[in-house]
Amino acid sequence: MQNLIENLKEYLDPVNDGQLRSVLDELSAAEIAEIWDNFSNEESLRIFALIQQDKRSDLISELHIYEQEHLIRELSEGITKTLLNGMEPDNLVDLIQSVSPELRSAVWEQLSEETRRETTFLLRFDEDDAAGIMTPRYAAILGGITVAQALKFIRKTMDEMETIYYLYVVDKLKRLNGVVSLKDILRANDSDRIEDIMIRKVIYVHDDTDQEESARVLENHGLLALPVVDRFNRLLGIITFDDVIDVIREEQTEDIYKMGAMGGNTNSYLETSSWGLVKKRIPWLIILLVAGTITTNVLHLYQDLLLAAAFLTLFIPVITQTGGNSGTQSSTLMIRGLATGELHFRDIGKVMLKEIIVGLFLGITTGVVILTRAYFTPPGIEFLPAIAIAISLCSVVIFATVLGAFVPMLIHKIGFDPTVAAGPLMSTVIDVCGLTIFFEVSKRILTL
Amino acid sequence: MQNLIENLKEYLDPVNDGQLRSVLDELSAAEIAEIWDNFSNEESLRIFALIQQDKRSDLISELHIYEQEHLIRELSEGITKTLLNGMEPDNLVDLIQSVSPELRSAVWEQLSEETRRETTFLLRFDEDDAAGIMTPRYAAILGGITVAQALKFIRKTMDEMETIYYLYVVDKLKRLNGVVSLKDILRANDSDRIEDIMIRKVIYVHDDTDQEESARVLENHGLLALPVVDRFNRLLGIITFDDVIDVIREEQTEDIYKMGAMGGNTNSYLETSSWGLVKKRIPWLIILLVAGTITTNVLHLYQDLLLAAAFLTLFIPVITQTGGNSGTQSSTLMIRGLATGELHFRDIGKVMLKEIIVGLFLGITTGVVILTRAYFTPPGIEFLPAIAIAISLCSVVIFATVLGAFVPMLIHKIGFDPTVAAGPLMSTVIDVCGLTIFFEVSKRILTL
Repeated sequence: MQNLIENLKEYLDPVNDGQLRSVLDELSAAEIAEIWDNFSNEESLRIFALIQQDKRSDLISELHIYEQEHLIRELSEGITKTLLNGMEPDNLVDLIQSVSPELRSAVWEQLSEETRRETTFLLRFDEDDAAGIMTPRYAAILGGITVAQALKFIRKTMDEMETIYYLYVVDKLKRLNGVVSLKDILRANDSDRIEDIMIRKVIYVHDDTDQEESARVLENHGLLALPVVDRFNRLLGIITFDDVIDVIREEQTEDIYKMGAMGGNTNSYLETSSWGLVKKRIPWLIILLVAGTITTNVLHLYQDLLLAAAFLTLFIPVITQTGGNSGTQSSTLMIRGLATGELHFRDIGKVMLKEIIVGLFLGITTGVVILTRAYFTPPGIEFLPAIAIAISLCSVVIFATVLGAFVPMLIHKIGFDPTVAAGPLMSTVIDVCGLTIFFEVSKRILTL
Repeated sequence: MQNLIENLKEYLDPVNDGQLRSVLDELSAAEIAEIWDNFSNEESLRIFALIQQDKRSDLISELHIYEQEHLIRELSEGITKTLLNGMEPDNLVDLIQSVSPELRSAVWEQLSEETRRETTFLLRFDEDDAAGIMTPRYAAILGGITVAQALKFIRKTMDEMETIYYLYVVDKLKRLNGVVSLKDILRANDSDRIEDIMIRKVIYVHDDTDQEESARVLENHGLLALPVVDRFNRLLGIITFDDVIDVIREEQTEDIYKMGAMGGNTNSYLETSSWGLVKKRIPWLIILLVAGTITTNVLHLYQDLLLAAAFLTLFIPVITQTGGNSGTQSSTLMIRGLATGELHFRDIGKVMLKEIIVGLFLGITTGVVILTRAYFTPPGIEFLPAIAIAISLCSVVIFATVLGAFVPMLIHKIGFDPTVAAGPLMSTVIDVCGLTIFFEVSKRILTL
């Protein structure tokens, strides 16, 4: 890729427009978008001018919002007009929703009557619902026509459709009655009527179905496209498999953010203002901080013990951190298993048994490691204290491993998303409980 | 879904075979697989018997390995034969690679000559490579034939193909020369020759291309299927969009495991033995423990300070935890941005500036919170000490926020996967540095 960028940079010399063009012709819109931010504003305008007409609208859909805004501002009105009206309607809606208000009206003015109608229709829906990712460019036919007529219809309209591999069969009120794949059509005879060969049990979603759930439906049925209907069963649009891949990627980002103790949207980092980042990060940071201050009280409670056995203080961070890590490992496994539908609350017996065995092993191993480290290396503590530390750590790890598995299952059972319970929140809970276990176990071993 | 399971359970009474069958007929193989483990071994055999023949092979592909083994063991030989030979070749290969050795030979004996040949071919490849997820059931034609001949060929062979929407054009040595979509074929005239209408610049991957990279290629080009060729450009098979969705889901699990400080495979939790789980968890747990013990030395170094100002001890866990959280937030944002290709090392200036601003804000806010908490609520410390704690926490959070962003970018730059640097490893590094900052700042404010 680095090579490609260098090649392009080299050809940006005016004499090489031809070569630049031929390199660009080889690349898909998505590939050009991926390297787009390697070029200066001026360079990117030069490149844009050399890209084939029909690839430009796809390219702009793939760019970040500030790059989109730059292009719209800088390009001549004629070019923007073709560009915007050539975009897939769902991508155009995304763009309109993201650009700054003053640019929005400029964009709107350049849309054709037809595009405006499509856009207005799509803007009615929530962007997180099934309808928010659908395209109205589906192929719909009436059930009464013949296979030959359907084929003729496909041939005539295919350039406007997002996919022609599924034809949706509707009645005069646009209610979805069936579906027929291009495969079924090729298999049938020219004179067969569509309603005799169509599948009547259509897999569909409603306009307000959550987009992640819609993604699962398409995925579970291995479909190329999924129809979206309103509550009167009228066909509104279709979701295609590439939209579903986008949804899965976004879901992935969301989950990773939650594990990193962040909420809110999954907008791109560079596009989010510093204030936006703060808003995303501060709520969990404060919640965890306040919860974490309980450790202050725990330590206060054991102040006498800490005075009597000062070496215990040295191990506070390593005990809490290791407890947190082992708890996070368990909760991560649970969260993932619950999310993919592999684990259910009824598996809790099996899970607990497994985690106890795993916890025992992890506890003993980490105990041996800390014993060796504490006894043999600086600062070096005596044998009995080292044993106390080792047994405490072992207990904390066993406890954390089991708790880390139990809590997400419980949270999921009562109907919440367990992802927030993983990572940071789990570490905080384990800090509090772990310190108590640490001090109680040490106290007994050291008979203080 | 719970409803569905209850319905099925109710119909499992022998008199209701008819109703059970009609419920099952409505469900896709994936949907049945999702609820499969709600039924006892005996129940699941009864249900299996009522499922339509052509859905059975899809169902078994979707099940967990222990459920697959159970079915293969319990079903009559005749049924297993049809079942196994009816599976998609790539799914069959996955099954053969997962079942226990003694069952493997039983499975092998029931395969037809044709299936064996296909399976042997696929078993040659690494399961993590492009070839590991491809199917050999693609539609290939010679460039010299006409559109009419191609259509006739599609009609004749479509039931054996995974997709007929792309036809791959090969020469006599099976070298990939072009591709033509069914759409292009419908657009063309019957007498046109395929090689005149085909696209010659085919997007393809090699058999040893990483499967995640192959997924990106299909995704970036919005393709339904992606051809896989060997180093002589001979067509070996195709990867379809549903395989790509599986790869993305698996990638998602892998990333989440890494953030939870676990390595190794992403096999299902229930299918992994306790020993397997230990192997997955122990390496990082020990590495982090050993790295974390550096905090012992830091604390030892500041023992005199801790004696002089004992209240500092009370805040050790909350300082390290909050530092860890803010660092993890930054590193999570970086890791995700680097993974999706939005961020690059050259953005480091912009990123650092942003993180410094964000860090300042987060630091001041958390400082105010801890000041309030420490001064006004039990155990309650005096004002100057509380100020010292607040300013220390503020410094630690600023430091952690900036470091948390810097380290993943650096690790990515030198060519490693930054995911391991997020979460746990970041927390450990921040523990060590954070404690030092905490003590140094407090020492100065308290003039000790």
